[in-house]
Amino acid sequence: MLLIAHVAGITSIAASIYLFYYINKQDRGNKKMIEISEAIRIGADAYLKRQNITLAGFVFVMAIIIGILLGFNVALAYIFGAICTTIASFFGMAAAVRANVRTANAARKSLKKAFSVGFYGGAITGLSIVGMALLGVSILYYFYPEHLDVILGFSFGASSLALFAKAGGGIYTKTADISADLVGKVELGIPEDDPRNPAVIADNVGDNVGDVAGMGADLIDSYIACLVAAMILGATMGVTFVVLPLLIAAIGTFASLIGMFFTRFKRDNPGAALNRGTFSTFLFFTILTFLLVYSLGIGDRGLGVFFATLAGLIAGMIIGITTDYFTSIDRTPVLRTAEAAKSGAAINILSGFSYGMMSVVPPVIGICAAILASWYLAGIYGVSNVYGVAISAVGMLSIVGMIISADAYGPIVDNSKGIAEQSGLGGKVIRIADRLDAAGNTAKAITKGFAIGAAALTVLSLFVAYSELVGIKSLDLINPYVIVGVFIGAITPPFLCALLILGVEKNASRMVEEVRRQFREIPGLVKGKTKPDYAKCVDIAAKGALKELITPCVLAIVVPIAVGFLLGKHALGGFLGGSIFTGIIFALLMANSGGTWDNAKKYIEAGFLGGKGSEAHKSAVIGDTVGDPFKDTAGPTINTLITVMALSASVFAPLIVVYALV
Amino acid sequence: MLLIAHVAGITSIAASIYLFYYINKQDRGNKKMIEISEAIRIGADAYLKRQNITLAGFVFVMAIIIGILLGFNVALAYIFGAICTTIASFFGMAAAVRANVRTANAARKSLKKAFSVGFYGGAITGLSIVGMALLGVSILYYFYPEHLDVILGFSFGASSLALFAKAGGGIYTKTADISADLVGKVELGIPEDDPRNPAVIADNVGDNVGDVAGMGADLIDSYIACLVAAMILGATMGVTFVVLPLLIAAIGTFASLIGMFFTRFKRDNPGAALNRGTFSTFLFFTILTFLLVYSLGIGDRGLGVFFATLAGLIAGMIIGITTDYFTSIDRTPVLRTAEAAKSGAAINILSGFSYGMMSVVPPVIGICAAILASWYLAGIYGVSNVYGVAISAVGMLSIVGMIISADAYGPIVDNSKGIAEQSGLGGKVIRIADRLDAAGNTAKAITKGFAIGAAALTVLSLFVAYSELVGIKSLDLINPYVIVGVFIGAITPPFLCALLILGVEKNASRMVEEVRRQFREIPGLVKGKTKPDYAKCVDIAAKGALKELITPCVLAIVVPIAVGFLLGKHALGGFLGGSIFTGIIFALLMANSGGTWDNAKKYIEAGFLGGKGSEAHKSAVIGDTVGDPFKDTAGPTINTLITVMALSASVFAPLIVVYALV
Repeated sequence: MLLIAHVAGITSIAASIYLFYYINKQDRGNKKMIEISEAIRIGADAYLKRQNITLAGFVFVMAIIIGILLGFNVALAYIFGAICTTIASFFGMAAAVRANVRTANAARKSLKKAFSVGFYGGAITGLSIVGMALLGVSILYYFYPEHLDVILGFSFGASSLALFAKAGGGIYTKTADISADLVGKVELGIPEDDPRNPAVIADNVGDNVGDVAGMGADLIDSYIACLVAAMILGATMGVTFVVLPLLIAAIGTFASLIGMFFTRFKRDNPGAALNRGTFSTFLFFTILTFLLVYSLGIGDRGLGVFFATLAGLIAGMIIGITTDYFTSIDRTPVLRTAEAAKSGAAINILSGFSYGMMSVVPPVIGICAAILASWYLAGIYGVSNVYGVAISAVGMLSIVGMIISADAYGPIVDNSKGIAEQSGLGGKVIRIADRLDAAGNTAKAITKGFAIGAAALTVLSLFVAYSELVGIKSLDLINPYVIVGVFIGAITPPFLCALLILGVEKNASRMVEEVRRQFREIPGLVKGKTKPDYAKCVDIAAKGALKELITPCVLAIVVPIAVGFLLGKHALGGFLGGSIFTGIIFALLMANSGGTWDNAKKYIEAGFLGGKGSEAHKSAVIGDTVGDPFKDTAGPTINTLITVMALSASVFAPLIVVYALV
Repeated sequence: MLLIAHVAGITSIAASIYLFYYINKQDRGNKKMIEISEAIRIGADAYLKRQNITLAGFVFVMAIIIGILLGFNVALAYIFGAICTTIASFFGMAAAVRANVRTANAARKSLKKAFSVGFYGGAITGLSIVGMALLGVSILYYFYPEHLDVILGFSFGASSLALFAKAGGGIYTKTADISADLVGKVELGIPEDDPRNPAVIADNVGDNVGDVAGMGADLIDSYIACLVAAMILGATMGVTFVVLPLLIAAIGTFASLIGMFFTRFKRDNPGAALNRGTFSTFLFFTILTFLLVYSLGIGDRGLGVFFATLAGLIAGMIIGITTDYFTSIDRTPVLRTAEAAKSGAAINILSGFSYGMMSVVPPVIGICAAILASWYLAGIYGVSNVYGVAISAVGMLSIVGMIISADAYGPIVDNSKGIAEQSGLGGKVIRIADRLDAAGNTAKAITKGFAIGAAALTVLSLFVAYSELVGIKSLDLINPYVIVGVFIGAITPPFLCALLILGVEKNASRMVEEVRRQFREIPGLVKGKTKPDYAKCVDIAAKGALKELITPCVLAIVVPIAVGFLLGKHALGGFLGGSIFTGIIFALLMANSGGTWDNAKKYIEAGFLGGKGSEAHKSAVIGDTVGDPFKDTAGPTINTLITVMALSASVFAPLIVVYALV
């Protein structure tokens, strides 16, 4: 049976390599376009190389610690996990920085052609990363069927990469974005993506390293973690239930491939094409999963697994749709927030922030429904309740191949728009790029909600798996250690958010100084007669991002271990619970308020409420800038942070049980 | 023994009446001053009367429901609780609106005299409200020694008033403040407290109804609730432990009276005088508590109670001090946030928000330490652990008489400054008023931290008391109902915050329109030749506040009951836990980020980084406006919200146990 997982992983990787060749075959367009896209590619490569060197050092140190404390095999799996995901995300990025210019060039021909190039470019990331993850886990399980702690090590390695990619990429992209906007748009009044702006290449690079590499790594990290959690919780019911999560994941991968086939283009609507792809993936996944559990010979228990999977999938959809409501340009929250900009920046910010806080409610209710439903439906058919919850997370994440593909499409078309503007391809091409971009924004919003929901359920499963590993039968909230653990867990996400946002702020102020300096000191730059020093800005963004990510990343790994050793395993259980409760709230609040401000600004820019240049627009730009690190740095990093914390606790659980002070 | 509590309550009330006569005897100054202060007094009276009429309707409906479901005595106690606290807070407000003008007049003589009038004016609120609360609880206990549910009803009544006062007053004050600033300062560039601004009287009224009435009600609501929780948890150990919280509270009241005596004025430093008063209260309270537990004849268990009390007091101090660090004008967070304003409003907001998230850490660690310490110290000496935690909350809150007094001093001197400016009393008087005001700001910051810490420990005690009432032995976090309960509890504070902030926003936009209209339509207003229509703005603020407070207040009562009936008592227990975890985080985040922005603006206004009128100043004003409803509406209301939710759950606990669906 395990062979299915191997085959799915290999097929997925093969498909992504095929698509890479397909993209590479496309024409890059004129000289100017090639020049710009090369600058972006080189910047992105340079950053990822630096990030990977820093990561390698980090992984090396961690591997030694893990090797000494937990054994050679776990350390090896940890390194293997980090390498697999690094290769996959590097490959995805390499594809994205090649697809952007080719999408721009295809847009000179037709919307349809451009959409294909953009979407298949994104699919490379989705397929390569899912393939590597699934293959990695299933190979490890093949060699160490009795040692799930080794697979836990693999997951921890993947999460370490994800944390670096998400935090570093997030700081990088927003450093560049904010600096480009503050000096370019606000101070000098030059348009977005203007080639005179020294930060513009760094900004384009940021879209790739932040959104493509970052988001891919983020989802894949939850994906692997939820597989491991489900395998651990399945162990009590027999080997079939340990393999089952891998099989469901394999089916999800096949369904994603079929879904991509259906991401066809009809009636000139890229948004509809993406939705059709996602919907067919849902459908095929549901049918195939039913056939799978039916054929496994586990009787009624198969139905329990099937319904739990379905509960997760539906919850994922609910979260996606509600996220979309709160950030869509034609709905009340965005319209009211745009309206509020007329009364000044402060009122605009208060409005977006309030809607962000409200947006937390529907997804959390969705998660609660998924928990209760999967718990019960599993229980009714004789599957262990907690396994049901873990399987619902697997259900949510199994179609991650399609989700990442639709998501990575976003920054590719965003970049292609930037390239089109910088190379002066003219109105028609830019309008096509705009339409591709608008569809990308919705997909991006849905993915974020999906990623957060999946992370919550995954960490919840890890939390239960942790309790299983340390032998906690009950985690009593009236026990003072548990309460204290929950409190400390609850303050950790906002504290790490603060570090990340301050990191962006510090780094952005460095770059703002540099951009101002260039405009001041390079003669003829403002008039467009000379070229700015793009490389200098790219360098500042990269150096700063790597500097600012270290503290939050180390804390995410060290704090849970410290809580475990100092306050005991019950406190650590409470800590994990607390980190989920506030983690999901802050993640949603930040992602959605940021999205609301962003689209409120876009609404005004579309000509309403005074349009570009009005007082309302200035206010909305301030709101959007506040939202930048909210939605693209701190918010999405929280998912990974809480996953890493839960994995850190689970990996070191055997030691905590023995050596804890309490 | 109970007599001590009666005596303390009566003494406290008597002292406040005496001080009221003392204040009333002071001279009100010239005709202009009298005119302005009368406008404020009439506005505040009018608002409070309206609020109390709305509250009366609410209490009437609730009392009928309670009477039918839980019996006549509980309903009566509920009404009694609402009436006692309403009278006390109305009396305190009446004193504050009389003390403000007299403080301004005294400032024409000397700083020392003005400080006395301001401080004693604040002490009236502190003493009357503590006296009424203590007397009310001790009288009810005298008549219903076996029915703690009746005292729970009293507490619920007091909390209903607190919720209205806090939410309504908070919306009122920020509606007026934001509108006055947006049109006056930002659009027209006229100074703060300028008599030409139609919103200026509403703004002064707001300081009174928001800060004096609101904050007093907030603390007293925690005060009563923690007494009840401790009494319920003490019942298992015998009657002495039921009476003990009342005795500690009585001692705290005496200590506060002594402390006020020591709030003397030396070396021209009002801040030092306030600190001396607070410190002597701490000291006398500690000594007297030790003597009390020693004389009670409960042996070593007395020591357990004493140490638990001390743990609460010390935690209260830590929270106060750390809050002060994050919002003080001469410390890193404020300085960095002010510096950030140079890069624009967005960076200023990101900085203050990040420090706000960081500021959550030390107080929560303080609360955790108090929990662990009081739990253990009580346990060591044979007192029940949970009683220890409840007593630490009592310890924190028992000196609330002094705390409220120092706090109510703030808005009085703030108002006196406004009156001095509007009546043109000249530079010297305004400088004195400024110095009084600066001391008031610190006291206000400390009180807020204190109020939040106390609310957290109180609700924690209520949460344990609730578990006792519904007979829950353990609240297992791995149980799906508990997890779902925690999730729903966790999203409730941010959701209610969102409603409150949007309420302020909606109301402020109404008032902004009105202020703009007056400047446009009243001839000669901008030049100061005619008077604006103050009453119209006062009316908008009042009507809007009452309209916007209803939804969050009703939800705070209904949601816990709904969770209890639909998902069962375990889910409701989890709900209460969840509401504390995020409640305290959002309360601290909002209060402290708001304080940071406020003082960053004041720092720039003091002439640094370009001073008033610079770009940095404009950015800081935007930050301050975002912070206004954070720190004065949503943040402080959360304390009361989580208390009301816990009381709502506890009051209806007997029904939930019987009729819950699960």
